[in-house]
Amino acid sequence: MTRDFQHEILPLIATRWSPRAFAPTPVAKGDLLALFEAARYAPSCYNEQPWRFILATTPEELSTMHSILFASNLLWAKSAPVLLLLLAKKSFTQGGKDNYWHMFDTGTAWGYLSLEAERRGLITHGMGGFSKKKAQESYSLPDDLAPVAVVAIGHRGSSEDLPEDLREREQPGQRQPLESLFYLPPSVLTAN
Amino acid sequence: MTRDFQHEILPLIATRWSPRAFAPTPVAKGDLLALFEAARYAPSCYNEQPWRFILATTPEELSTMHSILFASNLLWAKSAPVLLLLLAKKSFTQGGKDNYWHMFDTGTAWGYLSLEAERRGLITHGMGGFSKKKAQESYSLPDDLAPVAVVAIGHRGSSEDLPEDLREREQPGQRQPLESLFYLPPSVLTAN
Repeated sequence: MTRDFQHEILPLIATRWSPRAFAPTPVAKGDLLALFEAARYAPSCYNEQPWRFILATTPEELSTMHSILFASNLLWAKSAPVLLLLLAKKSFTQGGKDNYWHMFDTGTAWGYLSLEAERRGLITHGMGGFSKKKAQESYSLPDDLAPVAVVAIGHRGSSEDLPEDLREREQPGQRQPLESLFYLPPSVLTAN
Repeated sequence: MTRDFQHEILPLIATRWSPRAFAPTPVAKGDLLALFEAARYAPSCYNEQPWRFILATTPEELSTMHSILFASNLLWAKSAPVLLLLLAKKSFTQGGKDNYWHMFDTGTAWGYLSLEAERRGLITHGMGGFSKKKAQESYSLPDDLAPVAVVAIGHRGSSEDLPEDLREREQPGQRQPLESLFYLPPSVLTAN
């Protein structure tokens, strides 16, 4: 099923989606570091930059990351050459107050990372399906760092290598109509 | 002060920053709608798409939005021709459980929106400095919608029109070194 675009947008955004079939090809170090550079330049509240990363690329690092994934994700994500745990720092570094925007800003950084990956011919797939408790234990995370998502990164593989039920789902996701995203209908949409 | 890039990245990410000086020029409807189209195609947990928007472009809509901003932001944001309140739906539509990723995913959508704006020669400036209580009251927000941030959108104006203390701050923000963003130093950074 093809996506239905109502307005012309940045091609990288239009073509990006979240495949599950990963090729065994490793990710070049320069490409990988550029993803973090892109994330680094995301905007954030008071420029706090609350995003933090745990990166797994070696067999040992990947093995620990596999151990925190839910089985349904491990099934395909075990083939990704790179796994990344996104963390969000809950308090402001200056003053120590709760940062209401720690998840929000980390989401922006992930958005930038995902587009830099698309630009470099890499695929990404973010997962909420992992054990936060296991993540906290495995990595001895301090209370101030919230585990947010695990992202699989790599080159696209063949969907033939996926289990059959996932093979059918290996296509770009659809979206709600633009109009349904406005809580109050804005005049710009309702005006003739 | 120029930004220090450690790796080559998508030019739209590298050149985007958050100015405060807005020109009175209105934003074309087609440009504006494309920003939401870009946000619409962000990835989200279980494809929930928890981002919601309240858009202000008319004098009446802008006046309400001005009334929820903190004075320090109103000072400059009152010149923006477009203000946008970002909201995040706290529960999953299917099943009704809490969506741990509602702020995170809304941040990703905002990231995509910000880059589509940059692509179209528009500036954006996200603000955490607004009253959540006033936002809830002014727009009769249901408990399930968290007010997240107000974004100013428009064309860049002259920094000469800003108050003096803001004039000095009218430049791209700096970032922490890439290395400091890794909670555990990954082998890819530490290996020779």
